[in-house]
Amino acid sequence: MTLPHGAVETPVFMPVGTQATVKAVPQQLLEELDVRILLGNTYHLYLRPGHEAIRRMGGLHRFMSWERPILTDSGGFQVFSLSDLRKVTDEGVAFRSHIDGSSHFFSPEHSMDVQIALGPDIAMAFDECTEYPADRARARASLDVTLRWARRSKDHFEAHKHGAPWAQPRAQSTELRAQEQPGHTPSLFGIVQGGMFADLRRECAERLVEMNFPGYAIGGLSVGEPRELTREMIAATLPLLPVDKPRYVMGVGYPDEIAEYARMGVDMMDCVLPTRAARHGLLFTSEGRLNIKNRQYAEDQGPADPNCGCMVCRRYSRAYLRHLMAAQEPLAAVLNTLHNLAFYLETMRKVREEMAGASESAS
Amino acid sequence: MTLPHGAVETPVFMPVGTQATVKAVPQQLLEELDVRILLGNTYHLYLRPGHEAIRRMGGLHRFMSWERPILTDSGGFQVFSLSDLRKVTDEGVAFRSHIDGSSHFFSPEHSMDVQIALGPDIAMAFDECTEYPADRARARASLDVTLRWARRSKDHFEAHKHGAPWAQPRAQSTELRAQEQPGHTPSLFGIVQGGMFADLRRECAERLVEMNFPGYAIGGLSVGEPRELTREMIAATLPLLPVDKPRYVMGVGYPDEIAEYARMGVDMMDCVLPTRAARHGLLFTSEGRLNIKNRQYAEDQGPADPNCGCMVCRRYSRAYLRHLMAAQEPLAAVLNTLHNLAFYLETMRKVREEMAGASESAS
Repeated sequence: MTLPHGAVETPVFMPVGTQATVKAVPQQLLEELDVRILLGNTYHLYLRPGHEAIRRMGGLHRFMSWERPILTDSGGFQVFSLSDLRKVTDEGVAFRSHIDGSSHFFSPEHSMDVQIALGPDIAMAFDECTEYPADRARARASLDVTLRWARRSKDHFEAHKHGAPWAQPRAQSTELRAQEQPGHTPSLFGIVQGGMFADLRRECAERLVEMNFPGYAIGGLSVGEPRELTREMIAATLPLLPVDKPRYVMGVGYPDEIAEYARMGVDMMDCVLPTRAARHGLLFTSEGRLNIKNRQYAEDQGPADPNCGCMVCRRYSRAYLRHLMAAQEPLAAVLNTLHNLAFYLETMRKVREEMAGASESAS
Repeated sequence: MTLPHGAVETPVFMPVGTQATVKAVPQQLLEELDVRILLGNTYHLYLRPGHEAIRRMGGLHRFMSWERPILTDSGGFQVFSLSDLRKVTDEGVAFRSHIDGSSHFFSPEHSMDVQIALGPDIAMAFDECTEYPADRARARASLDVTLRWARRSKDHFEAHKHGAPWAQPRAQSTELRAQEQPGHTPSLFGIVQGGMFADLRRECAERLVEMNFPGYAIGGLSVGEPRELTREMIAATLPLLPVDKPRYVMGVGYPDEIAEYARMGVDMMDCVLPTRAARHGLLFTSEGRLNIKNRQYAEDQGPADPNCGCMVCRRYSRAYLRHLMAAQEPLAAVLNTLHNLAFYLETMRKVREEMAGASESAS
């Protein structure tokens, strides 16, 4: 996948950098981990420091000093999950900031304006993330809103994407516009909703594909449903999404889940799990999950994961990582996050290798 | 200054790594900053994870994965400043842990045992840090305790220093013992007290020099006294300490202070100021102190210090650093600490360069 700020090998796991930072980790160390693409949260950045401020400072890449690709979400998911007193109409969503209670309104058009100001490589359509559980009528209504918003998102985005801080100015003549190189503006992906109803998912996918997005996401998963259902919805939707365009499942998952979905054909995934769990002392390893706070590790001189060659496992013992948690040291979050991200990235690297091997032996 | 774990150019500023970590900074980045020696706090490490646990794991260097020199303090200062319900007798100090209220007792002998178990390159004699203000009678009595404890510290340390986790076993015969290479065991420094009385300081220094320590510290400063008094006490004491042995002023100071004391002949200093201030958003720069939380930096795209070439100033803007503080992001502590330490180390590097230039032109 070639994006304006660089190439990304797929399938890829994208660490979440909510507030223009992957919590606790310096960008230099993300580069050393070979992170190729980060996710930024539009809702958070809109509230603080503000998308106009970021635009004035040259966009999100420059603001956070990250020259590799960035994907921004639409803000929709956070509006629904974090803010207070939201009111959804066909026009958009009124909500109050979780920081100071101030009133705000996001429409598809406004979400596009905010994302364009941030200037990601990939922006996401403004959708309604259907809650779980939702009955068929509710999922249907929610899907219809998402489809109308997808159309409005795309129309507004196409008309204004050249306004991204780093984008090429729009060529004046039709002739020149036809020559526009890909990669000089952000791209907008559509998002499939439909609750836990396979036929609604398929319908949504088909309708979005008609709109011809350069990539597609499957949203509204990992919202509390059993994992079998997550996989079922992905399996029902994927075949309807063009195989030659990126297919992204939002907000998943555990290491074995991301490997499984990648093998099913998913190209991109993101999740706060590796970073959030790390801050609570939960480490993902080749031998399973490890709660580094446990007393049993107090004098364990082995690395977090004996099969991991990351910068944390090469240098620090379980005993040291446990001490940092017990002593409430900020370095705990730094090192635990580095290890978990390394484990997630390595998981995807292995799947890529495995898939390359499979396609080689098939040819 | 050549220590068992490496050479240290003096004058040197030692970052404080209280709980086996310089708060928020991975060891790899301390190495990139060219930190040559760290300070560890005996009181904290004794309480958590415990000196015996650290000994069993090969000592503090190995525990925290830091192969360069380490100095440990005696625990005395923290016992006096952090713990509850302390009771001082000639034998030692009874105190309660600030963590869980448990009862403990530190004598000079016990402090030596704890430090030897940690295995620093340099250990410190157990002293009583005279509070400020203290009248002459109190300073006199406190100094007498410190001198008796210095003797006991040295006797116990010399008898047991080969027990440090990385130390060479004691040679059996007298002949071989005479051949012991320096650097195969930790060294113990004496500490000058005497309150704010120059004659008491001088007396203490003379008595300690008679005991023939391999290095000397001036303690009990920066405890609330005016800065003129700090300098006066250093100026009164330094000439009595051998110029061919390291001279260390404990717990100072601001950047201009450490430069001033270094020019007066001080070889080593340590202070929590650069690291603690960083976590509160106070940055030290060539243009003075900067409170990065201030609104005026919200869109300031310049580096924290335009004259600083550190890894933070090369990459991140004031606006970004301010955002991280405003958003209460853990990366704020990481980056602010890195900058402040870089500024302190650079301050000392410049003094060393200046002194080398001066001694060159004098010869």
